[in-house]
Amino acid sequence: MGDMPRIWNETIEAHRDAVREATINATAALVAKHGLTGVTMSQIAKDTGIGRATLYKYFPDVESILHAWHERQIDQHLRGLVEVRDQTAQGFPRLEAVLTAYAQAVAHRGEHDNNLGDMLHRSEHVAAAHQHLREFIQEVITGAAATGAIRQDIPADELTAYCLHALAAAATLHDPAAVHRLVQTTLAGFRTSDRE
Amino acid sequence: MGDMPRIWNETIEAHRDAVREATINATAALVAKHGLTGVTMSQIAKDTGIGRATLYKYFPDVESILHAWHERQIDQHLRGLVEVRDQTAQGFPRLEAVLTAYAQAVAHRGEHDNNLGDMLHRSEHVAAAHQHLREFIQEVITGAAATGAIRQDIPADELTAYCLHALAAAATLHDPAAVHRLVQTTLAGFRTSDRE
Repeated sequence: MGDMPRIWNETIEAHRDAVREATINATAALVAKHGLTGVTMSQIAKDTGIGRATLYKYFPDVESILHAWHERQIDQHLRGLVEVRDQTAQGFPRLEAVLTAYAQAVAHRGEHDNNLGDMLHRSEHVAAAHQHLREFIQEVITGAAATGAIRQDIPADELTAYCLHALAAAATLHDPAAVHRLVQTTLAGFRTSDRE
Repeated sequence: MGDMPRIWNETIEAHRDAVREATINATAALVAKHGLTGVTMSQIAKDTGIGRATLYKYFPDVESILHAWHERQIDQHLRGLVEVRDQTAQGFPRLEAVLTAYAQAVAHRGEHDNNLGDMLHRSEHVAAAHQHLREFIQEVITGAAATGAIRQDIPADELTAYCLHALAAAATLHDPAAVHRLVQTTLAGFRTSDRE
């Protein structure tokens, strides 16, 4: 019987996660259908079957749900990039694979965003998530530099800013072949310059 | 006496330009001193010595003056880039000089912007000015491609999006040497890839 509290706590935790997930999913579906301004807490309560009073215990307003949604998306995105990193060989292949996955995600996001990004990108959570992304990419770049696969004359933080900005151009591209060309062009910037 | 209307019209035109310039300059100075929210039409009228009634004939509100200011800055910026283009040899040197001037302007703007950019970047005039910038850069890239100085395997519009996005990273750089390195990294992306 000594295990009861732990099991009970885990059950509560799992239940809370399920409520959060259901709320976020229902909100995402409502935004997709009605746009940002067409979503209310009452509608979310109705669609999830969660009571309004309970819903308000989890989230004070629609905006906080949207933030949680965006955080979850960034988390999933980062986890995807970590998987790509771990499945590829150290050095240039890893850098190429990670930057390709990142550019594809940016291109995909570019298609589906509609002012939502603008609003959410200002939040502190999102700023922290972007900081994680920069650190992650910088680690991959430092790793590639350590194998001698890329130029050594530019600091890793500057190469990180360069490639994240360059690949942001993917948001304007709809053709996967164009995204591939953008990644190749950006990667060419990592090669040793013969004019320096 | 047949020239009178023309001279008179030119005088009026010059006077109008002077009023517009004085208004824009005074507004820019007030924003620098008090921030965006601390600027009123009355204060602008007082600082310029232009009557309030006259001022309202030129601009309906502070925001329209700020837009005129931003347009003027973009115009000056583009004229500067055109000068750089015309003073450099066709091909890679011209591309390098123009992209360097652009990156320096972005770095300079990055230091001085304070939310003003966010507000103004949404205007139609600014969208048109950005379109001019893209067209201008694309022409320079097409010119460099025609001399065989850069890779031919990526369409010029994609190279334009690539380099304008990459050089936007200059807004986060304060060190001129770092801006130079960013331009060199970005230019390396224009060289023929040996992995394609």
